[in-house]
Parts: sequence; structure tokens; C-alpha cells
Amino acid sequence: MSVLVVGSVAFDSIKTPFGNAPDILGGSASYFSIAAGFFTQVRLVAVVGDDFGDEHIQVFTSKAVDIRGLEKVPGKTFHWAGEYARNMNYRTTLDTQLNVFADFSPKIPSDYSQSEYLFLGNIDPALQWKVLQQVTKPRLVACDTMNYWISGHRSALLHTLKYIDILIINDQETCELAEEESLNLAIPRVLSLGPRILVIKRGEHGVFVVAPGLKFFVPAFPVEEVKDPTGAGDTFAGGFMGYLAGARDHSLEHLKKATVCGSVMASFCVEKFGLMRLLELTFPEITARFKEFQRMTQFQDL
Amino acid sequence: MSVLVVGSVAFDSIKTPFGNAPDILGGSASYFSIAAGFFTQVRLVAVVGDDFGDEHIQVFTSKAVDIRGLEKVPGKTFHWAGEYARNMNYRTTLDTQLNVFADFSPKIPSDYSQSEYLFLGNIDPALQWKVLQQVTKPRLVACDTMNYWISGHRSALLHTLKYIDILIINDQETCELAEEESLNLAIPRVLSLGPRILVIKRGEHGVFVVAPGLKFFVPAFPVEEVKDPTGAGDTFAGGFMGYLAGARDHSLEHLKKATVCGSVMASFCVEKFGLMRLLELTFPEITARFKEFQRMTQFQDL
Repeated sequence: MSVLVVGSVAFDSIKTPFGNAPDILGGSASYFSIAAGFFTQVRLVAVVGDDFGDEHIQVFTSKAVDIRGLEKVPGKTFHWAGEYARNMNYRTTLDTQLNVFADFSPKIPSDYSQSEYLFLGNIDPALQWKVLQQVTKPRLVACDTMNYWISGHRSALLHTLKYIDILIINDQETCELAEEESLNLAIPRVLSLGPRILVIKRGEHGVFVVAPGLKFFVPAFPVEEVKDPTGAGDTFAGGFMGYLAGARDHSLEHLKKATVCGSVMASFCVEKFGLMRLLELTFPEITARFKEFQRMTQFQDL
Repeated sequence: MSVLVVGSVAFDSIKTPFGNAPDILGGSASYFSIAAGFFTQVRLVAVVGDDFGDEHIQVFTSKAVDIRGLEKVPGKTFHWAGEYARNMNYRTTLDTQLNVFADFSPKIPSDYSQSEYLFLGNIDPALQWKVLQQVTKPRLVACDTMNYWISGHRSALLHTLKYIDILIINDQETCELAEEESLNLAIPRVLSLGPRILVIKRGEHGVFVVAPGLKFFVPAFPVEEVKDPTGAGDTFAGGFMGYLAGARDHSLEHLKKATVCGSVMASFCVEKFGLMRLLELTFPEITARFKEFQRMTQFQDL
């Protein structure tokens, strides 16, 4: 079963203590697509400018991502530039040029309107809502957002949240969305806004999933050297939703495995700059790291 | 098999957003003893003043803690006062009166010198070393320390570390001890100082254990309302070492279960002020929460 993703495709210029990578392919939908593609068919909806060349298109087609929804319009592709501090937990945005992304109005190809699995990347919640209206009867909708939308586009976001199943955000965003300082108190409040399932990304501390009858933790993999954290969250979402779409089963047991798959994918993502590590990744490497997660977390009865 | 603990017994005055608890029984060795006592026999070595009444002694004897090593001397018992901020992650020390603890020189009763399991609580590393010299042939020695000793008594601490098996500290202390900003780089450096096993407490983010052939994570239990975090680290250590001493087996599988037992005990500790929750705790509650930790972390094969 395929998963439809709507989000950004961008060129990123990234500085980390390990080096610079100017103008590399990035954006939330790119990371999501490549990661999800290991588990299921992916349909990509995004916009790029006429500077988006065949070599960039081929990144997606070589991984069998369906790009009929990737719109190319006159102008320049979204460009983001950022720099990470030494411990990689803080980043500074050096430059944001929305370019063609400023007027992005997602058009879902009619073939896609029956998509059962849907991921609404971190875009304007009004656009997320627009996508929801074009997909007839999704079985499972997951959504990302960020502080910019939480504080500045709150009512649109609250509207969108009513129609989604899974919200994938970080711990700080959970507290901001709930207007609560304590994460424990924020969680039930966010769940009362619509989503049944809350997936809280905690960076180097892993992921925490709350669903009816489930509280589930997965640690972050202790990567020897994080080279570039860009896209780790979207890559997590790609592994997570890709697994669920591939399994066509949303039982708690599959939700857990999806969370581990997301964590596995994110752990590979940060090992090299941009999409580099994901593009060379093999499925046996994924299953081997999944087993490493088991060794890191499983223990016998008392 | 019994575990010998050397540390502080104190009166604490604690303020949290949930209330005040003046002059309650505390100290690292108290929390450790009560927690470890659920799993094994405990021998307590500490010093108190003549203000330490029978009602305080009975807290230990009622839990079958062996207090032949609890020395009572003229003067007042160690007193600490502290206040926690709203999110409980920050605390301010309001007052520290070392009193009789200032001249503490641990004397190990001769009956204790054959102890096989030893926990060196967070005291002057020179005193920790003095204890080590009085215990003939310990099978397993664990040790706690803090930034005060790491920065101010470094050479004494480095000496003690050569003779221990397990170091139980938090993530910040791991970095300070290694003089490394990155935890990933700090870990191998700390392990090169002596301990075979490093147990890193990460507060609300759980515990990370590194041993030869093992990297193991346990999340913190999502306690509904943390009332008082005082003693959680020592309670963890008590559950951890108590389990190992009770099991008499240090295989990786037991090391994992010990880490979960420590996490279980710490999760109860913070539910009420001081030792209150630990003192009313039952073993069936411990096994039930152990199972909850399993549900929170275990997943099937891919």
C-alpha cells in the first residue's frame, strides 16, 4: 500500500562542525520519501523551481518514488541555509528563501485521491487542510508541525488537528501546543485536540509514543559521530509511516515496530550529510540495526 | 547475599511546588538502603548525631537493614535544605550543615569486611578509598560521585575509580569527568579510567548502561506527578545493586534487569516526599511496575 506525502522539497546549505554542504537536495518531503520508500510505495506532492534539474529528479525516480505530484513551476526552488553548534543540539537558520514554495498550493493528482496513508509534512496548516479535502477516505493520516505554526497559525492548526490520526512533533512543540510547561500534563491536552496517537520526538533521547492502551519508548541509537542532523525528524516519520503503510496494520504491536523503524532510519540519516546515507542504504542494514535496537532495549522477566 | 553501603544519613528540608517537608530522614545511604532492602540484605555504614532518635533508627530496623555500621556521635546530624523549580529539573540548595558528617571517617565493622557487594555513596573519594581498603575481596563495587568531587578532588577520585567495577553518575558528570562536551566521546574516556561498567542517569530521560558487549537503555517511568525528586538517584542505585547482590550473577542479562529494577524503584521514590513512598511499598507493586516497563519498551521482530 502506498503512502502520500505532502511537504517541501528544497536545496539546503548546511554547516556542521564536520564541514559544509552547499545547495544539497533536502526538504521534509525528500527525507520522508526516501526513508518511506524502503517499506512501501511513495507518492510525493511538492513544488520545485526550474533550477530543479534531472539529476535531482533522478534521486527520487531511482528509488521508485512516484513523482507525478511533484510540480515544477517557473522560479527558484525553496532554499534553506543553517548552521549547527558543536553539540548538534542547536541550529541557527542563516537564510530562508521560500521562492516557489511561497505560493505552494498542493494539487493532489486524481490518481492519488484514493490514497489510504497520508503524511502531512511541516507546512501551513491551511495547506494541510487543503490536502485533506482532496483525499477521499484515508485510513491513516499523520501530521507534522512546528512552533511557527503553533504560535502564529494556531486556529488553522487546531482545525487540521481534528482530522488527523497521528501527530508527530517534538517535546517542546507538544508543550507549546498544549500551553503547558510539563510534558506529562501537555500530552493529554494535545490528545484532546484530535489526534488519537501522539509521537513525541526527543532528539538524542529518542521517541515516546502515546496511544490508547500504549505508552512506548524507543531510545535514539548511539551514533558514533552525528555528522548532520538535518532531516532526522522527517526521516523518522518516513520510516514510521512507510512501515505502517507496508504492514497495512495499525495494531499496537505494529505501531511499536513502526516507531523502531522510524528510529532506525533517523539513526542512519544523521551519519552523513543530507540524504547521502539514506541513498546508499540497503535493507539488510536496516534489519541489522533493528536487531541492534532490540539488543539495546529488550530484557527478560523479573 | 548482602550489599554494604557507605554514604550519608541526613535530615532534609525539602520544598517543591507540591509543599514543604521539613527535617525528614534522607541522605544517599538511607535511600539506597531502603530500596536495596527489597532485593537483598543491606549493611549500612554512616554517621549520625545525637539528635538521631529511635524513631529514625526504627525506619531502618523495620526494613531489616543491618545498622551495626551506623555510628552515632555527639553533635547534630547532617542537614540539607533545598528547593525545586516548577518543572523539577532544577534545584537550589538553600542550606548545607555538614555537622557530624564533616568528620565522617567510615569504620567498617569487622563482620562486614568480607562483604561481596559494595556501594560507595557520593562522599569524598578519599573516604571511598578508605572503605575499599577495609573490604577484603569485594565481588562487585559500585560508586557514585558528583561535580564537587570531580572538579575539586580530581586526583583522589581518579585513584578510587581504578578500583571500582561500576560507576553510577549522570550525563553531565560523565562529560565533566571526561572533560568532553559530547557524551558519546566522554563514555569511552570514563571507561578508560577504571570502571568496566558505566551507568548514566539521565533524569526524566532514563538510564543508559555501557558495559563490554552491552549498550542498554531504560526510559524513566512516566510518573503522573513527580512530588519530590530527592533521592531518586540513590534509590536507583539501591534497586540496581540490591538486585545484583540478590541475584549473585553479573551476566549482561542480569545487568539489564538490575537497571530496570533501579528504574522501578526510582519511579516510586519520586511519587511522594522523601522516603515515604518507599516505606509503604510492597514487592507485588515492584513486580507490577517491572511488567509496565516491559510493556513500555518491548517489541517483536521486524
